[in-house]
Amino acid sequence: MISPPNEDNLITPGDLILIYLDIKRQYLIQAAEKLNLSSDLGNMNLGEIIGKPFGYVGETHLGKKYYCLRPSTADLMFKVKRKTTIVYPKDLGYLLIETAIGPGSRVIDVGTGSGALAMVLAKFVAPDGMVFSYERREEFIENAKRNIERAGYLRNIKFYCRDVAVKGFTEQAIDAVFLDVPEPWAIVPKAADALKGGHHLVSWSPNVEQVKRTVDVLRENQFIRVRVSEILEREILVRQQGVRPRERGITHTAYLVRAQKIIVGSRD
Amino acid sequence: MISPPNEDNLITPGDLILIYLDIKRQYLIQAAEKLNLSSDLGNMNLGEIIGKPFGYVGETHLGKKYYCLRPSTADLMFKVKRKTTIVYPKDLGYLLIETAIGPGSRVIDVGTGSGALAMVLAKFVAPDGMVFSYERREEFIENAKRNIERAGYLRNIKFYCRDVAVKGFTEQAIDAVFLDVPEPWAIVPKAADALKGGHHLVSWSPNVEQVKRTVDVLRENQFIRVRVSEILEREILVRQQGVRPRERGITHTAYLVRAQKIIVGSRD
Amino acid sequence: MISPPNEDNLITPGDLILIYLDIKRQYLIQAAEKLNLSSDLGNMNLGEIIGKPFGYVGETHLGKKYYCLRPSTADLMFKVKRKTTIVYPKDLGYLLIETAIGPGSRVIDVGTGSGALAMVLAKFVAPDGMVFSYERREEFIENAKRNIERAGYLRNIKFYCRDVAVKGFTEQAIDAVFLDVPEPWAIVPKAADALKGGHHLVSWSPNVEQVKRTVDVLRENQFIRVRVSEILEREILVRQQGVRPRERGITHTAYLVRAQKIIVGSRD
Amino acid sequence: MISPPNEDNLITPGDLILIYLDIKRQYLIQAAEKLNLSSDLGNMNLGEIIGKPFGYVGETHLGKKYYCLRPSTADLMFKVKRKTTIVYPKDLGYLLIETAIGPGSRVIDVGTGSGALAMVLAKFVAPDGMVFSYERREEFIENAKRNIERAGYLRNIKFYCRDVAVKGFTEQAIDAVFLDVPEPWAIVPKAADALKGGHHLVSWSPNVEQVKRTVDVLRENQFIRVRVSEILEREILVRQQGVRPRERGITHTAYLVRAQKIIVGSRD
Repeated sequence: MISPPNEDNLITPGDLILIYLDIKRQYLIQAAEKLNLSSDLGNMNLGEIIGKPFGYVGETHLGKKYYCLRPSTADLMFKVKRKTTIVYPKDLGYLLIETAIGPGSRVIDVGTGSGALAMVLAKFVAPDGMVFSYERREEFIENAKRNIERAGYLRNIKFYCRDVAVKGFTEQAIDAVFLDVPEPWAIVPKAADALKGGHHLVSWSPNVEQVKRTVDVLRENQFIRVRVSEILEREILVRQQGVRPRERGITHTAYLVRAQKIIVGSRD
Repeated sequence: MISPPNEDNLITPGDLILIYLDIKRQYLIQAAEKLNLSSDLGNMNLGEIIGKPFGYVGETHLGKKYYCLRPSTADLMFKVKRKTTIVYPKDLGYLLIETAIGPGSRVIDVGTGSGALAMVLAKFVAPDGMVFSYERREEFIENAKRNIERAGYLRNIKFYCRDVAVKGFTEQAIDAVFLDVPEPWAIVPKAADALKGGHHLVSWSPNVEQVKRTVDVLRENQFIRVRVSEILEREILVRQQGVRPRERGITHTAYLVRAQKIIVGSRD
Repeated sequence: MISPPNEDNLITPGDLILIYLDIKRQYLIQAAEKLNLSSDLGNMNLGEIIGKPFGYVGETHLGKKYYCLRPSTADLMFKVKRKTTIVYPKDLGYLLIETAIGPGSRVIDVGTGSGALAMVLAKFVAPDGMVFSYERREEFIENAKRNIERAGYLRNIKFYCRDVAVKGFTEQAIDAVFLDVPEPWAIVPKAADALKGGHHLVSWSPNVEQVKRTVDVLRENQFIRVRVSEILEREILVRQQGVRPRERGITHTAYLVRAQKIIVGSRD
Repeated sequence: MISPPNEDNLITPGDLILIYLDIKRQYLIQAAEKLNLSSDLGNMNLGEIIGKPFGYVGETHLGKKYYCLRPSTADLMFKVKRKTTIVYPKDLGYLLIETAIGPGSRVIDVGTGSGALAMVLAKFVAPDGMVFSYERREEFIENAKRNIERAGYLRNIKFYCRDVAVKGFTEQAIDAVFLDVPEPWAIVPKAADALKGGHHLVSWSPNVEQVKRTVDVLRENQFIRVRVSEILEREILVRQQGVRPRERGITHTAYLVRAQKIIVGSRD
């Protein structure tokens, strides 16, 4: 768990650290008394960073500097071991803000995948909230658990191996539902059952057809304020020779769907 | 405070509610026993929604439906009373994920402005974290307090009326610094003093020159992994007659700068 | 006709001129011995510009300067009298380059609309090429003719009032077909008949569904190298207080489809 | 020269042809009686396509189909032999439309580079217009000539090996000036001398600082209506499994500057 760090901000065994040499050499490691890391710019004896403060500047055996940085939430997402595509920080940051969740919230996540999403949700609903993470493939859950254990958020997540399109969710009165599956529309009716009135379902898909079908089913299932956006990130290079956007990069990840559940027939 | 809502998810006096008629008629109100709201689609007696569940569907006196929705974090941001431009949800969501903060973190925010940023940070560091919000103009702090009180996050924020470029920050060992000021470069040295090693400073500015100068000063002040991005949101309209991006909209808000502090001379 | 201007580049009656006061006050006029133009920044006696060189700086009766500029091709497009949306310069410039047409080409244009597209195509196939412009609504052709006459390109355009989805084209061995209609797929088989082997059909539509259906029909009709792009223009403001993109603007116009005809069974 | 093709649209020796197998295998060749082309999908005896119509479908010796397509103007640009970056079709198409040039225009191009720009300008000012192409490095001119000769546009271009920032241009009363150099601002005063009043100078640069300095110098040198844009192309994939933008691609090429010359002191 990232927070609370010790007051002195000293590196202790078990801490996740981003070892940064340069833009192409960044490694997420877990601090330990005995740990060596090699790169083409030299080997690092990372045992020596224990007891040093975060922000410590070390040197490889070839004299190249490395930096011991606190990993951002985005770093944790990018560095999971994955068998699937992950949700991108630019997309997840947006979706997080587009729901009402925060510390204490109870959230559903389908499907677990690499666990990156469940991990981040767990971080932001901690210390008292819970993430209920559903996944059909047992082996994905095992991989996700390993990823999340390292980051320290397992206690805020409960996993289910289940086909929710068929069997639905165990929980009710959920604060938000996050759908990252190929056929989100198939889960919408079950999500409507699990969700609190007035609260948010979010879903993301790479293709327009998926979005259209999901939106149609949301509108048929008592959801209102259905909106779709795309978030694009453009990296800007600030260099001595001039400022300009990066020349090549990611140009599409997913369309982001959001909607809120209403309670029809709620008038007495 | 949004969370924790009562278990039954019933509307009670003091709750913030998004009254939604359609895309152009959305109102953030605070529930009360006696409350009337008028729109060009009819008047709403909002006293009657007390005790109803969130998601309740009401009707104006002209028979137009309205929906009682849980406001998202983005809704809270957009609906503050403001005297300045606000940070956009697309930008803030991204910056949140690009730092390491979460429940329990201690964060600095300069300047307070309308309070939208401090409010959201407070939400995500709750219940035990703190936001230290610095602002030079006393009247902005007063307005911000009113905005945030309504949302229930005042107890996680401490305000200072101070020119931090000159006088610096009171706190040390801070988990992240957020800068939303016209001259962020002037604050970077003070931010370096307040920040934990390895942790994140983020800043955003509309103009390229501001970004360049901030980046230069960050590099001179022991910051590493300095990166700049722009986040663009594109709304997609999903309608019966066809799916397409919206034809007009926001095309620029700010460039987002992130950097991490290192501790030079930390080798023994 | 814009070119060739007289050698001295002097304004003569009949010339199209962009009278430019500032970004919000730009007028496309046709020079005449007697011509007055009013704006909220003063009246202009435009008779006095006859015999002056292009680039002339005049003054309104209120002392505000105005500039006599040569209209660009894009200016001619934007300033037509229109009853429909027009193709944007950013899109047309791209499509022009994505075909093989140039001076001397024979091109088909469906539908005529305001005539902006036919006018620009005529300009670039002049002096010896021809544009064959098809439109179902007679009144649109009349309006288009008036727009194009002013710009001087009528002699390179032949108009037809016809439903080409049903009746097809009169011409054969055409160098390129441009489709700007709500149902481009319905015209693709006829376009295939009219087009030279190996040559280009281009089409643009605002909605994804239109694009998908058009692409499907192109693939069924002996077209290869079917590609779809979107062209986005972002205006950058360069000002004393800083450089940044404009904050609001056009965010979508059309998806651009291009394909090339093949001749199946052409092997002997 | 692409146009006029023979009436029968048959492939004859000397024709430029795009041999298209699939998106990754596209070759711009010049038709000849004896010509073989190899690819990893088989060899092609391209002698056999002489006398066949454009659009002809051939087969490699491994039975893979290839298509004989008419190259677009953009294809000609992309397939030049280059020692420098080229202007992209999306940018050039836009700039072409943003000036007033067309058949018959007299245009200046600095610097020649690979010749792609001069070639396209020559195509669009043909048959009677001229491009005056300036370049400081003799070897670039030689390479450019070879590129353009193949496309058939040499007779509409005159090359100069000259440092125009110092020595200026030979021509006067030019219809448009295109600047593709690292320091466009240094050429602006000379360009002002060469350009017709009211006409267009365009320039493109990858970095913001270049743009700012160019704009400042344009404003100091009797140019008005100075505007800067960026053109972004987004490729859309239309496939059976769904429609979506391509996931990776080009994210920046250049900022496009346009301005028009005025004639100060032109009042009598």
